[in-house]
Amino acid sequence: MIRIFVTGGTFDKEYNELTGSLFFKDTHLPEMLRLGRSRVEVSIATLMMIDSLEMTDADRALIVERCRQAVETRILITHGTDTMVETAGALAAPISGKTIVLTGAMIPYAFGSSDGLFNLGSALSFVQVLPAGVYIAMNGRCFTWDRVRKNREAGTFEAI
Amino acid sequence: MIRIFVTGGTFDKEYNELTGSLFFKDTHLPEMLRLGRSRVEVSIATLMMIDSLEMTDADRALIVERCRQAVETRILITHGTDTMVETAGALAAPISGKTIVLTGAMIPYAFGSSDGLFNLGSALSFVQVLPAGVYIAMNGRCFTWDRVRKNREAGTFEAI
Amino acid sequence: MIRIFVTGGTFDKEYNELTGSLFFKDTHLPEMLRLGRSRVEVSIATLMMIDSLEMTDADRALIVERCRQAVETRILITHGTDTMVETAGALAAPISGKTIVLTGAMIPYAFGSSDGLFNLGSALSFVQVLPAGVYIAMNGRCFTWDRVRKNREAGTFEAI
Amino acid sequence: MIRIFVTGGTFDKEYNELTGSLFFKDTHLPEMLRLGRSRVEVSIATLMMIDSLEMTDADRALIVERCRQAVETRILITHGTDTMVETAGALAAPISGKTIVLTGAMIPYAFGSSDGLFNLGSALSFVQVLPAGVYIAMNGRCFTWDRVRKNREAGTFEAI
Repeated sequence: MIRIFVTGGTFDKEYNELTGSLFFKDTHLPEMLRLGRSRVEVSIATLMMIDSLEMTDADRALIVERCRQAVETRILITHGTDTMVETAGALAAPISGKTIVLTGAMIPYAFGSSDGLFNLGSALSFVQVLPAGVYIAMNGRCFTWDRVRKNREAGTFEAI
Repeated sequence: MIRIFVTGGTFDKEYNELTGSLFFKDTHLPEMLRLGRSRVEVSIATLMMIDSLEMTDADRALIVERCRQAVETRILITHGTDTMVETAGALAAPISGKTIVLTGAMIPYAFGSSDGLFNLGSALSFVQVLPAGVYIAMNGRCFTWDRVRKNREAGTFEAI
Repeated sequence: MIRIFVTGGTFDKEYNELTGSLFFKDTHLPEMLRLGRSRVEVSIATLMMIDSLEMTDADRALIVERCRQAVETRILITHGTDTMVETAGALAAPISGKTIVLTGAMIPYAFGSSDGLFNLGSALSFVQVLPAGVYIAMNGRCFTWDRVRKNREAGTFEAI
Repeated sequence: MIRIFVTGGTFDKEYNELTGSLFFKDTHLPEMLRLGRSRVEVSIATLMMIDSLEMTDADRALIVERCRQAVETRILITHGTDTMVETAGALAAPISGKTIVLTGAMIPYAFGSSDGLFNLGSALSFVQVLPAGVYIAMNGRCFTWDRVRKNREAGTFEAI
């Protein structure tokens, strides 16, 4: 059983046709898993629905706490890409014995041409087989939390 | 560097609007990797573009031979789902020391609502981290070649 | 109020992921009108769900009869493209005083890249403003029933 | 021959994956006409690429001038929905003897689930058959410029 914690991020942004702006409604995770014909047993909980640039220390403390309390030893977190590395870092010290993989998207799933479904398939696979540790799964690759940064100009994650 | 061998399958089927039937043209793999913003180094070769129900022993022998000759030790094969398990079995004995992951799709990528992008993200992730062996990556899960069958009624892969 | 008669055709074909073949389930017309944010008052009835190559004289007689009986004077018919011109011809003599527009699609709506939504917007517009007569709306154009043929090589409708 | 003037609007907005905001690049009109398999002869010119809330009097004067100078008597204008009615009003007095239809979209074409293709099929059809005048084609309907308003709460156009 994989635990999935939803925190928002580009993954789950939608277009509000009345205001012309982007916003959060419900997570698309269940729909995406259905589209991928996933048969992995998962339990999904939405912790927050926010842009990761707006994530506070209190938000991160909540994520850490929920990961610590989880009975599952394999956890996938959907997260905005801008501060994904920071949250991964916050998880590394307090959690041990669990495999935690963070992933996100550059393009909202609700729009065409999203990388979200690819990333979800990737993260869900890495989380099933990697040893305990905190990882970021983006661009088809997997990085340990302390060996990665987001290249904001390229919009990709790269090893450091 | 991951070697990708394309053999066709539902993954790459397209709709011929003049005849109303399904056919193969070029593989969508490069486009799918672009959509997924993949930064995994891959080398793609199309071995054949066929429905896996029409795959002959000679076709399988070619796939085995190309996997054996490949300098890469990590190989991803896109394949029709109907005889994917059979091809995996054909690869198991003659190849050693390489991680080979087969994947496919239930719905053509060119149509909306395909599981292909999810499966590609999944297979590309498994192939990077699993030990040597022959595997099938479908439904977000990964099976060793001798522990899986396609459930044709459900359209899913399951452990045996 | 516009009357819409659904007869099937490529418009409404779907991909059966268990058999790998195309089939008909329910019409996508209501979903397509919702996607187009249509506020045109319509009343939809499914007369049949068939490939127009399989349409019999009895099927055509039914379509004619339903058009004749309809209290609405503006009728839109979704129809396979292969025999759309033949059905239009069958409607021309027995029906008078009504504006009937036939339309269809070259690519199923359920697949990406369909022309169906464009054609539906086009046909629904023509049927609201054209004088009584039987027309075919395809490729953004509108033809009277006796001045059009399908060019099977090009997959388009053209004036004769 | 139909003249098409592009002015931007939601129709042509795209998602910038580096900044997470919406922006304009090139118009999607040619791609949309290709998707719709349109065989209507058109000549497309981009006059501006702006949100209609930012449209100035000078912008509107340019649109009026280009419509007046056009040799074509049938003109389609893509436009943001927020001030579409205002631009239609600006065109009504100075232009005579031409059929001008404005249309737009509530959801960007580049996103899934856009009403843009439906609206384009609709507007392109109305502009071919309606008598001289200035019209707005939205929601599958067509309104004369002085008999319509945008209902901002519902996100639809309605008769007044």
